[in-house]
Amino acid sequence: MGLMGTSIAVSLLASGHRVIALAPIPGEKEKAYDQFIDLLQHMDKAGMLKSDTKTYLDAVTLVEDYRALIECKLVLECVIEDMDIKKSVYHKISEVVTADTVIASNTSAIPISQLQLLVPYPERFLGIHWAEPAYMTRFLEVTCGTFTDPKIADEVVSLALEWEKEPTLLKRDIRGFITNRLMYAVYREALSLIEMGHTTVGDADKACRYDMGSWVTLMGIFRRMDFMGVDDFIYSFRRLFPQLSNRTDVPPLIKTIMENNGRGIHNQMGFYNYSEEEAKDWEEAFADFNEKMYHLASDYNEHKLGLVRDSK
Amino acid sequence: MGLMGTSIAVSLLASGHRVIALAPIPGEKEKAYDQFIDLLQHMDKAGMLKSDTKTYLDAVTLVEDYRALIECKLVLECVIEDMDIKKSVYHKISEVVTADTVIASNTSAIPISQLQLLVPYPERFLGIHWAEPAYMTRFLEVTCGTFTDPKIADEVVSLALEWEKEPTLLKRDIRGFITNRLMYAVYREALSLIEMGHTTVGDADKACRYDMGSWVTLMGIFRRMDFMGVDDFIYSFRRLFPQLSNRTDVPPLIKTIMENNGRGIHNQMGFYNYSEEEAKDWEEAFADFNEKMYHLASDYNEHKLGLVRDSK
Repeated sequence: MGLMGTSIAVSLLASGHRVIALAPIPGEKEKAYDQFIDLLQHMDKAGMLKSDTKTYLDAVTLVEDYRALIECKLVLECVIEDMDIKKSVYHKISEVVTADTVIASNTSAIPISQLQLLVPYPERFLGIHWAEPAYMTRFLEVTCGTFTDPKIADEVVSLALEWEKEPTLLKRDIRGFITNRLMYAVYREALSLIEMGHTTVGDADKACRYDMGSWVTLMGIFRRMDFMGVDDFIYSFRRLFPQLSNRTDVPPLIKTIMENNGRGIHNQMGFYNYSEEEAKDWEEAFADFNEKMYHLASDYNEHKLGLVRDSK
Repeated sequence: MGLMGTSIAVSLLASGHRVIALAPIPGEKEKAYDQFIDLLQHMDKAGMLKSDTKTYLDAVTLVEDYRALIECKLVLECVIEDMDIKKSVYHKISEVVTADTVIASNTSAIPISQLQLLVPYPERFLGIHWAEPAYMTRFLEVTCGTFTDPKIADEVVSLALEWEKEPTLLKRDIRGFITNRLMYAVYREALSLIEMGHTTVGDADKACRYDMGSWVTLMGIFRRMDFMGVDDFIYSFRRLFPQLSNRTDVPPLIKTIMENNGRGIHNQMGFYNYSEEEAKDWEEAFADFNEKMYHLASDYNEHKLGLVRDSK
C-alpha cells in the first residue's frame, strides 16, 4: 500500500469493486487509510466519482494478514522490483488463494515469464502495468508471459475497459513492453543529437512539448501519419532511417549525471537543476496538468467522436 | 499563399507585423484574401487577437509582383519542395531585396546548406520551419546552413519569441532537423515491434496517446526523466538500448500501404481505413483539439510557472 498500491486500489474502488488492501508493515494501515481519503477527495473534486467518498471507503478492507486474500478473484502485486521479495510475496498469496484466482504484477522491470514460474498456476499469472496516478490516467498495459492463458489476458482487457482504461495487450513479454521501448528509442536519438552538438536538452524538450505535444494525445503516431499523408513519410523513412542512432552504450551525458548522484527533481539535480521550491512547483504543475489532460483525453476519446473502427 | 503561406502570414499579422503577401498565380490573390479573413476570424474566436480583424487585414498587402518585396526585412519562402522551383523563386527575390534582407525557407526536406548557395548572401539565409496551423502552434525550428551567420539566427530566435513561439535553434542542418529525427526513431521502433507481432497499430497509438500524451506537453522528455527519477532510467538504458531496432530499410507495413496507393485520410486509406465522413471528423477534431492544446500549453508555459532556468 505505497504510492502505487493506494493509487491502484482507489482506481478499482471508483470502478465499483470491493477491494481487500493488504498492508502488512506495522503502521502502514493507518497511512494507507489517510491516503485513500486524500485520493478519493481528489477524484471527487475532479468530478470522477458517482457516489460520495464514504461509499467507496466502505468498500475497502485494510488488512495485515494475507489470509484475507481468500475472497479475491484478482490479486494485484505492486511491491518493489526485487525478485526475492516478489517470490516471498507470491508464496504467501498462493498459500491462500483458490485455483481460479488471477495473480498480476505491476512490474515494469522483471519479465512476466520469469515471475509466473513462482506461482502454482502460471497460466493464471500476467502483467497489469499502471501509470501513476493510477486513478487518473487511461494508460494500462496487459502483458502475457510465455505460460499465460490468452483467455485470461482477454478477460483482464475487458475488465480494464470497465475501469475506463485504454488497455493495450502485449502477447509476449518483450523487454520494456511497448511504451518504454518507444520512449527509449526517442531518448537514444535525442541523447545522440545532443552529444553531437546538434541540439540541447532544452531544445529537444521544446520540440517534444510543442510539436508532438500538440497532437499525440488525440492521434498517436500512426493516425498522425494518416492525417499528414502517409506517402510523404515513406520517402523520409528511406532517407532518415540510415541516419538514426544505433548506439548500444549509455550516453556520456546521463553517465555524468549518475556519477554526480543526480536523481532529478528528487534531489534537485538532473538534466536540469532545481531549487527546492521549483521541484515542488513541478510536482504541483504535473498533478494539475494531468487532471486537465485526463478530461481532455476523455472528451476526444475515439468512441465519443464516433470514430470507432478496427486498425489493421 | 497556399495553406502554409496564409497561415504563416496571419501569424505574423497577429504579432503586429506589416506583411507583403506574394500571390503571383492568377486568381491566387482573391483566394488568399478570403483565407486571411477565415483564419483571422478563427484567431479572434479563440481570443488570440488584441485588435479587431479589420486592423490586421489592413496590415497585409497582397501583391502579384516580386518587386513589392523591396520593403521587406525578412522574406519567408514556402513554395513546394522542388529545388528548381525554389531556385527560380530565390532568383526573383534576390533581384529585388537589399543586401541586409534575411531570406528564410520553410523547407523540411531540402538541406539549408544547399538552398543558401542559390542566393547572393548565403550568410543571411536560414531555415524557419513552422508547424501547421502556423498561427495556432508554438513550435518553430530555426535552422542554420553551413554559411549562415549565427548572429542572424539569434536575431530570428528573438523575433520568434515576439511571435509567441517556443523556437528551437539547430546550428547545423542535419537531415530531418530535431523533431523529425525524434519522431522517426519512434516510428522505426514501433513498426519493428508490429512486424515482430509484439503489438498492433492500434495499441502503439494507445500507448502514445495515453502514456506519453499525459505528460509530454508539460515536460518534454528530459524533464520527464528528472521527474520520474533519472537514476531509474540509467539501468534501463543499459538493458534496452541493445534491444532497440537499428533497421535502415523501409518496413513492409508502410511499403504495402504505398503499393496500394494509400495516402492516409486524404484518400481514406492508410494505417487505418476511413469513411469520407470519418476523415472529415478527424479534420474537425484536430482543429478543435489543437486550439485547446494551444491554450493549455500556454497556461503551463515555463515562464508563467515561474520555472525559468537554464538547461545544461
